[in-house]
Amino acid sequence: MYNDYPHHISDQPEAKIMSESPHSYIHGWSDRESIRLHDQASGLGFLLHEGTRYLPGSTVLEAGCGVGAQTILLAGNSPHAQFVSVDISPDSLAKAQDRVSGAGYTNVTFRQADICSLPFPAETFDHVFVCFTLEHIPDPLVALDTLRKVLRPGGTITVIEGDHGSAIFYPGTPAAHHVINCLVTLQRQAGGNALIGRELEHLLADSGFIDIHISPRQTYASQNIPRSSEAVKKIFIAMIEGVREQAIEGGLADPDAWDRGIRDLYRTTEQNGMFCYTFFKATGRKTV
Amino acid sequence: MYNDYPHHISDQPEAKIMSESPHSYIHGWSDRESIRLHDQASGLGFLLHEGTRYLPGSTVLEAGCGVGAQTILLAGNSPHAQFVSVDISPDSLAKAQDRVSGAGYTNVTFRQADICSLPFPAETFDHVFVCFTLEHIPDPLVALDTLRKVLRPGGTITVIEGDHGSAIFYPGTPAAHHVINCLVTLQRQAGGNALIGRELEHLLADSGFIDIHISPRQTYASQNIPRSSEAVKKIFIAMIEGVREQAIEGGLADPDAWDRGIRDLYRTTEQNGMFCYTFFKATGRKTV
Repeated sequence: MYNDYPHHISDQPEAKIMSESPHSYIHGWSDRESIRLHDQASGLGFLLHEGTRYLPGSTVLEAGCGVGAQTILLAGNSPHAQFVSVDISPDSLAKAQDRVSGAGYTNVTFRQADICSLPFPAETFDHVFVCFTLEHIPDPLVALDTLRKVLRPGGTITVIEGDHGSAIFYPGTPAAHHVINCLVTLQRQAGGNALIGRELEHLLADSGFIDIHISPRQTYASQNIPRSSEAVKKIFIAMIEGVREQAIEGGLADPDAWDRGIRDLYRTTEQNGMFCYTFFKATGRKTV
Repeated sequence: MYNDYPHHISDQPEAKIMSESPHSYIHGWSDRESIRLHDQASGLGFLLHEGTRYLPGSTVLEAGCGVGAQTILLAGNSPHAQFVSVDISPDSLAKAQDRVSGAGYTNVTFRQADICSLPFPAETFDHVFVCFTLEHIPDPLVALDTLRKVLRPGGTITVIEGDHGSAIFYPGTPAAHHVINCLVTLQRQAGGNALIGRELEHLLADSGFIDIHISPRQTYASQNIPRSSEAVKKIFIAMIEGVREQAIEGGLADPDAWDRGIRDLYRTTEQNGMFCYTFFKATGRKTV
């Protein structure tokens, strides 16, 4: 049924429902989370996607498209490439599809799939793009191995992940660091890794990719830089706030300590504050 | 005696010996430290000095030149500007002078001085350059106030500092973080601040500078990037190793834990390891 890929796959975007339960997505599935992810993608779009352009006619797998926050940037930046965007969540896929078709892009097809067990033949894609996905996967090497298999020889992979250990801010308080550490702990308990950015080089190497290049993409936010502090609030702090109940119910923080930490994080976006964060963008190539 | 500055000041570089004792320079004054500082400056020269060029005929104060590691880059990058490089240590100044004259530069004069109490009239300089100096000063606002006074109206200040909290590395172990934290603690005990990079924006603002711009300069080192891991060893790890005795004598680490932490740091420079660090470069302007 994949022989006529990629042209007809859009006719049956939800034809195959994977039986596995979704990996635990620590940030939740709320509407606010969906808005946050789009803010993240548009505000950081240039920073993260700079350098990622695909040739006309090439086929690209976006593995873990979520609500389509990166998809819309991929589709717009490489309008003559053909994208297949997969995600394990039907709800997210539906939102992604709405958004991409709403923007008028016709070069993306969607398909539900688990990136650790992809329903594509070997050597299907010219390129693979993965963003903010490996951080949620219990064994990223299994995912990378699966992705490498569906990549044609000589094809490239691009992986973008954050690393919450890269957050530097002023004023810095123990309470602010504590709420960030709560998210790191919760994500680890769910099988993910919020500090995965620093591991991309060895993960790609361990997976057998060659020509590995790491490009750190650092953001610096303060009131001197228009909209930057707003982005910290809408993207980073909102993400931390999203796990409040989990952190408190899990015994990682009491409500007062939590609220103090969040308040302290907001303080970094005010007068004389600063907030710095690094994303890691990794590229590699499959051997020919 | 400053009326004929800057042309004749080189005739009497040690004419005025400040009475204050030097600030505690936590990294020591050994020959190895001198070599380390030069390695640091040459390896990071492009990263840190990119964008710093002074117009022909302008006068620039380098405040805290140490052994001349940055001086030689300043003098070479702006060969027609006139530099006055001051440091509180006569030994460091002598080394800096040897190095700069040995390289054939004639656009630098040296003078011993405490940057918190400078022997120059107000509004003497067109620009001020400070690198890896404020981190050692108990009250950087006093230093910045002094520097602002000797700057002409509309003149610029450039400040470059590291921030050890920006160190991200893989593999990351508690022992490795512990030895870094030992240096941070020792530097704080000596009145300095090894986490000052994140504070440059508010420090310049609090000092009354305007048009403040912060440019984070991030390094990423791994075996895939030629010479980068060597630089981590020679610059960062050597700096940590330099406080071994102080850390052990000060009760911050026992010898085994220390040596394990250093070994773990070296591990980040080996196969599949990575080490990331951010310097913060700040510029500001004095109001006219």
